[in-house]
Amino acid sequence: MYGAGDVRVDTVPDARIVGPTDALVTVTRACICGSDLWPYNKMAPTGVGNRMGHEFIGRVEAVGADVRTVKRGDLVVAPFAWSDGTCEFCRQGLQTSCLHGGWWGGTELDGGQGEAVRIPQADGTLVVLPVAADHALMPSLLTLSDVMGTGHHAALAARVRPGVIAAVVGDGAVGLCGVIAARRLGAERIILLGRHADRIALARDFGATDVVEARGDEAVERVRELTGGLGAHAVLECVGLETAMATAIAIARPGGAVGRVGVPQDSTIPNAKPSFYRNVTIGGGPAPVRAYIEELLPDVLEGRIQPGRVFDRVTDLDGVPAGYRAMNDREAIKVMIAF
Amino acid sequence: MYGAGDVRVDTVPDARIVGPTDALVTVTRACICGSDLWPYNKMAPTGVGNRMGHEFIGRVEAVGADVRTVKRGDLVVAPFAWSDGTCEFCRQGLQTSCLHGGWWGGTELDGGQGEAVRIPQADGTLVVLPVAADHALMPSLLTLSDVMGTGHHAALAARVRPGVIAAVVGDGAVGLCGVIAARRLGAERIILLGRHADRIALARDFGATDVVEARGDEAVERVRELTGGLGAHAVLECVGLETAMATAIAIARPGGAVGRVGVPQDSTIPNAKPSFYRNVTIGGGPAPVRAYIEELLPDVLEGRIQPGRVFDRVTDLDGVPAGYRAMNDREAIKVMIAF
Repeated sequence: MYGAGDVRVDTVPDARIVGPTDALVTVTRACICGSDLWPYNKMAPTGVGNRMGHEFIGRVEAVGADVRTVKRGDLVVAPFAWSDGTCEFCRQGLQTSCLHGGWWGGTELDGGQGEAVRIPQADGTLVVLPVAADHALMPSLLTLSDVMGTGHHAALAARVRPGVIAAVVGDGAVGLCGVIAARRLGAERIILLGRHADRIALARDFGATDVVEARGDEAVERVRELTGGLGAHAVLECVGLETAMATAIAIARPGGAVGRVGVPQDSTIPNAKPSFYRNVTIGGGPAPVRAYIEELLPDVLEGRIQPGRVFDRVTDLDGVPAGYRAMNDREAIKVMIAF
Repeated sequence: MYGAGDVRVDTVPDARIVGPTDALVTVTRACICGSDLWPYNKMAPTGVGNRMGHEFIGRVEAVGADVRTVKRGDLVVAPFAWSDGTCEFCRQGLQTSCLHGGWWGGTELDGGQGEAVRIPQADGTLVVLPVAADHALMPSLLTLSDVMGTGHHAALAARVRPGVIAAVVGDGAVGLCGVIAARRLGAERIILLGRHADRIALARDFGATDVVEARGDEAVERVRELTGGLGAHAVLECVGLETAMATAIAIARPGGAVGRVGVPQDSTIPNAKPSFYRNVTIGGGPAPVRAYIEELLPDVLEGRIQPGRVFDRVTDLDGVPAGYRAMNDREAIKVMIAF
């Protein structure tokens, strides 16, 4: 990405093993993330270009001398952040705060929207998948790299538990996975706040029991009506805009929680007083999806959840710029890249 | 209070039983709260005047026909909010969101800084104290009406647990009680951010292991140094200003929590991005001290905690205006009113 709206398929130096903890992975599946649309709309032009993509499945081609848990030939899924798996925060299951970890792409490291990626901390980062690269579950397995784990994180931060009323702000791929996660954790009712017919239909399939298409004060009013005037116990904020956060806080009941996973685009959290007076807890952040892959993988492999249904378009590498446009124009929910 | 800086001792209509769930209480001890200083500095002039005070102990003089748990002659402590004890939120222990509750003072209801108070929901609100009104523990028992329970709430919302590093932002009476609460819940280290020598000395007595007198970026830097560069697990925000909240978030480590109990004076929460990227949870609000009185009472009665030491001045009713001035000028930590 060379700037807002300017995504090009370019040649970069070949990925290769540099350090003893590295692995070299050739990508078999990747995708475009809703969070990639923030720079797609805002990024200042640059002559260098950022390598893009942080969600991918691939084949291990080579490993450094110290790598123990993956080997050449393994099919692996990569979380959207790499991590050593051994630092204080990794041990706590917060791999997105790894003291020796980082993020894919940029100018130094490879991105998932490319043919091959150097994995700096292979043992801590990669998870071996027990299936073939052409397995029918590939789309759902790919969501474990980000959106399904991120929806799960939102649900945990929002403290979804059996019997509660959950609300999901945002009908993008993460919001839809949030619906799956809320249902999986036992929410009795799930209210989706969204306004795109195709996404709403999918949300209902995933377990949404109510849909609110209004925005702002009207949406707040509608959720209050749906919840006996009290609001939702658990609110999943899956957008990242201050307006969405304001709505999320406003629809949470006293003692409830907002789990935010939409990458914040603003420097403040609104509604500081209403959230205080109602003892609404605000949690969340970049999901430690590395910690969640092992938890969610059986549900995917055994077909209990089907988050791969968020992909409604598949492209090859050359089609990535068009994929960005389609997602940005809301013509596609989420675009998968097959290599 | 008739406006900023304008506190008068006035005669209002006698408190009396109005409804069947009421009790009439004559106040024996009350106090001035740090939160009373917000209107003391900001309140627009009014010709009517607001009755003040939300922390008191008193004697039950009469009860309405439906009151069951308190009787004439009982010595009782009142939480800073009244509540029915039976609604959905009361049953969950969040009495400050009682569907049929409210706040002391204003123009309609009596305040604790007065001779007598009508208690609208006596059964849900009042807790009988098993001591005489002149008992030596009266100051500590009085803190159960607000500051000790509020410090405890901050510690719970900040998720203080055995072994953690806690930090307390603010050295007012609530911050000092936050130190007591953090120690009581097992914090291994307690860092106080404050700059008043008398309060710091008391905080050290209460269990603070480190003191940071700097503010802003320098304070953040200092806490980082004290915590191996990582920050505190649990941060108790006991001020209410956006600057204090910014510091609280900045000194929390990844995966940590900020418990805020300082009444927010601003409409936004700062540091939305750092709190997100480090998965810092923000919780807290008006403490359901009604729920905490029973938990904390044995510790007070048996002398394990001595929150009453936050009172460093005693006055009679006529001295209340001077008490406000003394607290506002930081000449007193907290002023008790003996009737």
